[in-house]
Amino acid sequence: MQGTDVDFKEHLASRRALIDAALDDAVVDTPLCPPRLAEAMRYSLKAGGKRLRPVLALLACEACGGQKEEAVPVAIAAEMIHTYSLIHDDLPAMDNDDLRRGRPTNHRVFGEATAILAGDALLSRSFEIIAREVSPAKVAADCIADLAAAAGPEGMVGGQAADLAAETSGVRDQEHLESIHLRKTGALIQASLVMGARVGGGSKSECQAMKSYGRAVGLAFQIADDLLDITGDAAKMGKGVRKDADHNKLTYPGLLGLEQSQKLAARLTEEAIAVLSPFGKSGRPLAAVARFAVERDH
Amino acid sequence: MQGTDVDFKEHLASRRALIDAALDDAVVDTPLCPPRLAEAMRYSLKAGGKRLRPVLALLACEACGGQKEEAVPVAIAAEMIHTYSLIHDDLPAMDNDDLRRGRPTNHRVFGEATAILAGDALLSRSFEIIAREVSPAKVAADCIADLAAAAGPEGMVGGQAADLAAETSGVRDQEHLESIHLRKTGALIQASLVMGARVGGGSKSECQAMKSYGRAVGLAFQIADDLLDITGDAAKMGKGVRKDADHNKLTYPGLLGLEQSQKLAARLTEEAIAVLSPFGKSGRPLAAVARFAVERDH
Repeated sequence: MQGTDVDFKEHLASRRALIDAALDDAVVDTPLCPPRLAEAMRYSLKAGGKRLRPVLALLACEACGGQKEEAVPVAIAAEMIHTYSLIHDDLPAMDNDDLRRGRPTNHRVFGEATAILAGDALLSRSFEIIAREVSPAKVAADCIADLAAAAGPEGMVGGQAADLAAETSGVRDQEHLESIHLRKTGALIQASLVMGARVGGGSKSECQAMKSYGRAVGLAFQIADDLLDITGDAAKMGKGVRKDADHNKLTYPGLLGLEQSQKLAARLTEEAIAVLSPFGKSGRPLAAVARFAVERDH
Repeated sequence: MQGTDVDFKEHLASRRALIDAALDDAVVDTPLCPPRLAEAMRYSLKAGGKRLRPVLALLACEACGGQKEEAVPVAIAAEMIHTYSLIHDDLPAMDNDDLRRGRPTNHRVFGEATAILAGDALLSRSFEIIAREVSPAKVAADCIADLAAAAGPEGMVGGQAADLAAETSGVRDQEHLESIHLRKTGALIQASLVMGARVGGGSKSECQAMKSYGRAVGLAFQIADDLLDITGDAAKMGKGVRKDADHNKLTYPGLLGLEQSQKLAARLTEEAIAVLSPFGKSGRPLAAVARFAVERDH
């Protein structure tokens, strides 16, 4: 990782491959799980995406001196929770989306009932994987507490509920927007990093640094997403663009304008990188991810 | 518990009171959880019901020599998972029910989006409670593995998916029906008992006995539910009766007839009670629950 773009891409690609292989094994056909349910779970799990959360878990583990393989259970648990949230958010009663990552959404393929159940199943499975595969048990319990809090009513679900309410409430200020995103996407990104640090043997202050890094990177990613919704290319994005404005969604560009939003994203990226200094060289891949957050085109 | 009906009722009532108080504290208003989401979670959690799963968790803990208070976190976690499953099962895309325990279903009051999110939030919170409140961590991790497996794709969610499929598939045999109910309701009942035994310091064979007891009691309860759907009083049941037949649901009376179903429930009750013999006197409340399973009128 001498900072070249090619090294960084290879570094990430090898970690993504490890995650994709583990996700392949995470939902296999068994006599007790109805085949259509398993198929629906796999359909969304294997739809690809950036694998941001599991990659961050692996990188955080390594930054704290652990082996990337140790972080695989918490990494795929985080990706399963992210995937369940996408399935439920896409439902007709929620965002009513037909397309996700360039393919029909889960409920468009399997029907609403199966989509709801596939989401529910992924959520439960994610905790089971950590409970069974992470040791010692104290680390497993701490990771489950982190992940459940990040996913639950004060985390991702709370953020989604607040976001839905904001569409109609007319509340339109930056503090409120930040509070929604910190819960809706930030909390799970932070939990992925903290879990990675925990399984990598990170100290309390290293876990705290990962949390701060995750806060900044999470917001930067969200602002970049909002910007791509306006300036992006539908083909590269794999979904419709300018949907947020159509839905009267509260967004950063809608609130601050394009230029100020870009500046804020850049500032958050610098903040994230600064937090990594105690990790020295082993924090460089995480710094590269922070830069990628705002430079990507999809 | 000298076997009198009054003693048994008081014994259960004091345990239900402990559970209701803990459920009151489980979802409180916080700055991060949107008020409407918290309200929706509480609405269904406080709708009452028999509190079968948490009561069983407490009784199993006590049968193994533990104090009932030790089992409260796993008990309310099990009730939260049961409650989430009712909210999601009632959704228009699933069973499309308007009434639950005599009150409008969650989505009829709060809308579909909030109902989906309230269910999701209860599911995550249940694991968080165990991770934070059960010690030692090994017991917490084991309980989470039990509960997640019971709730997930090979447990409750798998059973619900299989049940929905059975409505249209035309598969109509007792083995299939039993397999659905063991997953849809049996698995969570078994997990509640096994978790109770674990936190009560139960041995491996005591945990196994609780699992066998839970299998028999769970099926007996389900058969009794099927029978009440035909013979029951809508006012006592708090929901419409004869709904199963209207939905072309696979049921025990539909498959075996009334008389054979009653005989099977009675046989399962005796099986459940027999399994409890190693617990001696401390297993009596569980035996009383098994008898109640088939004698109740609601």
